Amino acid sequence: MKDIQSQNDSRKIPIDKVGIEDLIYPIRVMDRANVLQHTIAKVKLSVELPHNFRGTHMSRFVEVLNKHSNNITLHNIEDILDELKKVLKAEKSYLEFEFPYFMKKKAPVSGMESYMNYLCRFIASKGEKFDFIVEVNVPVHTLCPCSKEIADRGAHNQRAEIQIQVRTLKLVWIEELVELAEESASGPLFALLKRSDEKLITEKAFDTPRFVEDVVREVAIKLYNEPRVYWFKINVKSFESIHNHNAFASVEIDKRQ
Amino acid sequence: MKDIQSQNDSRKIPIDKVGIEDLIYPIRVMDRANVLQHTIAKVKLSVELPHNFRGTHMSRFVEVLNKHSNNITLHNIEDILDELKKVLKAEKSYLEFEFPYFMKKKAPVSGMESYMNYLCRFIASKGEKFDFIVEVNVPVHTLCPCSKEIADRGAHNQRAEIQIQVRTLKLVWIEELVELAEESASGPLFALLKRSDEKLITEKAFDTPRFVEDVVREVAIKLYNEPRVYWFKINVKSFESIHNHNAFASVEIDKRQ
Amino acid sequence: MKDIQSQNDSRKIPIDKVGIEDLIYPIRVMDRANVLQHTIAKVKLSVELPHNFRGTHMSRFVEVLNKHSNNITLHNIEDILDELKKVLKAEKSYLEFEFPYFMKKKAPVSGMESYMNYLCRFIASKGEKFDFIVEVNVPVHTLCPCSKEIADRGAHNQRAEIQIQVRTLKLVWIEELVELAEESASGPLFALLKRSDEKLITEKAFDTPRFVEDVVREVAIKLYNEPRVYWFKINVKSFESIHNHNAFASVEIDKRQ
Amino acid sequence: MKDIQSQNDSRKIPIDKVGIEDLIYPIRVMDRANVLQHTIAKVKLSVELPHNFRGTHMSRFVEVLNKHSNNITLHNIEDILDELKKVLKAEKSYLEFEFPYFMKKKAPVSGMESYMNYLCRFIASKGEKFDFIVEVNVPVHTLCPCSKEIADRGAHNQRAEIQIQVRTLKLVWIEELVELAEESASGPLFALLKRSDEKLITEKAFDTPRFVEDVVREVAIKLYNEPRVYWFKINVKSFESIHNHNAFASVEIDKRQ
Repeated sequence: MKDIQSQNDSRKIPIDKVGIEDLIYPIRVMDRANVLQHTIAKVKLSVELPHNFRGTHMSRFVEVLNKHSNNITLHNIEDILDELKKVLKAEKSYLEFEFPYFMKKKAPVSGMESYMNYLCRFIASKGEKFDFIVEVNVPVHTLCPCSKEIADRGAHNQRAEIQIQVRTLKLVWIEELVELAEESASGPLFALLKRSDEKLITEKAFDTPRFVEDVVREVAIKLYNEPRVYWFKINVKSFESIHNHNAFASVEIDKRQ
Repeated sequence: MKDIQSQNDSRKIPIDKVGIEDLIYPIRVMDRANVLQHTIAKVKLSVELPHNFRGTHMSRFVEVLNKHSNNITLHNIEDILDELKKVLKAEKSYLEFEFPYFMKKKAPVSGMESYMNYLCRFIASKGEKFDFIVEVNVPVHTLCPCSKEIADRGAHNQRAEIQIQVRTLKLVWIEELVELAEESASGPLFALLKRSDEKLITEKAFDTPRFVEDVVREVAIKLYNEPRVYWFKINVKSFESIHNHNAFASVEIDKRQ
Repeated sequence: MKDIQSQNDSRKIPIDKVGIEDLIYPIRVMDRANVLQHTIAKVKLSVELPHNFRGTHMSRFVEVLNKHSNNITLHNIEDILDELKKVLKAEKSYLEFEFPYFMKKKAPVSGMESYMNYLCRFIASKGEKFDFIVEVNVPVHTLCPCSKEIADRGAHNQRAEIQIQVRTLKLVWIEELVELAEESASGPLFALLKRSDEKLITEKAFDTPRFVEDVVREVAIKLYNEPRVYWFKINVKSFESIHNHNAFASVEIDKRQ
Repeated sequence: MKDIQSQNDSRKIPIDKVGIEDLIYPIRVMDRANVLQHTIAKVKLSVELPHNFRGTHMSRFVEVLNKHSNNITLHNIEDILDELKKVLKAEKSYLEFEFPYFMKKKAPVSGMESYMNYLCRFIASKGEKFDFIVEVNVPVHTLCPCSKEIADRGAHNQRAEIQIQVRTLKLVWIEELVELAEESASGPLFALLKRSDEKLITEKAFDTPRFVEDVVREVAIKLYNEPRVYWFKINVKSFESIHNHNAFASVEIDKRQ
């Protein structure tokens, strides 16, 4: 059968990225306890396409994924990118895995255990060099400092979300980024709380008011002081309980500059 | 050209509903002040198909919509359904319009004006009789009575959403349902608040704690006592600020029973 | 600490359903090969609340889930509902698990294997009786019979989705419903196809044109003739490639009537 | 009342962007025929915050929007950004409006008219200079050249979406970008087609097969040759009808380099 994709293309336009996305696939990711966690990823894989080829070969992306999905780790990801470059004859390859990651958490007073789910993303590419970003999305609790100050009683508070992206010199575990985010808000979230826990969490949040501006800075300071991290981007979004729109704040710092 | 849709079908299976959905279309809806409000609807239109016809004629749904989209009112909706029955030779026709509906609101102390957006739905059908449901989705503020009671200071609160569906004997305006919902929560939401407003709203919410169970009952009592409404369904969903999941409560009452 | 939820309520309004939703939780589901498949569920759990109680106890839903999430089967689900009734002192309990379910599929000519993902739902309740619905959502390929007939060459085709819900007398596996759906369309989908497969699939779809009306009837006939199924509801939605809206058709049949 | 936001901040971390997002607001946009089109925007507004201020004043974003939402044009957008800088005492301000934009289209043979909806975005900022990006998202039809070549009959085809972002020296209308996108695919989409139109469109798509790689290059050539455009980014996504994942291709070109 004719290979239309390999035909010569005369339009003189190289394509930055061509590939597949929104592929839902079962993967296993190594967690901090060195256990392979089963999860489900939304996968995006692509390569550069030189100007003289008409198309890429889409099925090869899935063939490469099939070989590696059982064990997604830092080293494995570089292997996937190398293999994509090879089988697709490309100078550069790109990869994104978006997946829920579960951590078992204990309620602070009752000690009851349950799972919390953090949406994570591995964003990587390999041209001459390997580039790797870890992203975590951490739902938290924020209580408004202005509302607390001006009101005679109470203070509005709400669910918020902290997104952290890092580039690192050495491995930083997802669990470390989640903990760092939770310590920067008015409080963490849990799937299971008893009344004794709810009392503590309510009071602690009231004692720790945080604007989105405060949260983004608290996270930034912690990442700035973490020597393994050399670049980071933080976005905090608060689902305001007195508005139907959201407040946000973002900071990006490259320590090499 | 051959009319494949009109071919005889021998499979003996009538189809309950066949039609189009997810059509995004500009419409104009009459508001309480008798002004035609420009908005954008997600439209779903369908008919019953007898067992002996192979298919319906999809383009006719859009032709009928085209004639009427400039003025969507209660009477107009029954006309659309009648026309769908006629042009598609059907015994029963169905229609859904989902659209954002804007109300100008004044902040309670500063008096500053801004627009709030409420997602609404008209759900209607006509077989022998005309059936019409109005749905409004009203974002509100809820403050947890348990958290307030057990904590020495503060109380967790969050954005919540009240969905109301009604069948009525006489016209009930969207604006009336929105106001009724907002009065049943710990407080309403606004797009624009100054500090004096935020103080009032924070204190009022603290003085009006509401579980989802409370909110759904407060709305139910109001609708029960409204003589124009003969059937209603209420769903309240609270985006809990101490959990990453939501709490909900629902009630459906048919007064004719 | 005071138990606000257990306070007496004087508003005389029983609540149909109160509970939690949008809880993301790792579960394991038994597949046809008797293997426990790891997946991730969006969970909704609720109970009836009598008029004289102010609130339910939300944390107990998660406690019950924690005990059972390792093995979700038909029997297990009835146990969860019984336990919810008991710990929440309710007359009726409700449960929904929505989860991606993976099946390994071979491409028809090359034999290459890959995973396809089908979104499934278990919808169950227990009052006096146990009610259980299995839902599968199966992406397929549809080719328009009208376009094929009237055009001199080609025919428009597109991705479509078949949703099937069944109540059964005896266990029907998810795999059986998926296969039955795929056989009712112009063709099934795959994650991985080589050129030899693509040729076969293209030609087969061209030889098997199907309106949404055809697909819904083909599925209905198969379920009608399956003695284990006593009730079913089918919805077919086609993401039309010549329109920016979708076509749909639905049928519900209760064989006991 | 105390102004907490204006407090001095000692953490030494300037914030890149702080503001509001997901605000749903009615706006009016000027179209090519110089008519103000009513639509509904999702609005994002933000400013830079110097390291020494604790917070921004969120309500002022909505106050500025209120003044200008009746007439969103290129000049107006720069005014909004200038005003945000002024009232929020910021060095740089940012704005995004995402909105459905309607164009009346005639079916190619029958001449029947209906509205097509294109999701658009204005992305702008003003520091020392004004930067303005127009984005359009155009749903189209693509037919696979490989499938056509290897199959004895038919060819798989599907809905696809072309996203174009441009920076320009002189005004380019949304309508021009939509038309340019539609001419680059296997065919355009319509809300309303009769059988004579469907015949033409089916045949034309069969005669104009296009990979995502082809589409992105066809758009790139047209934008490259358009002197008003000095920078563009194109992303094409095809909702493959034989897979449950999507194919994509993207190109970004800055002509000044």
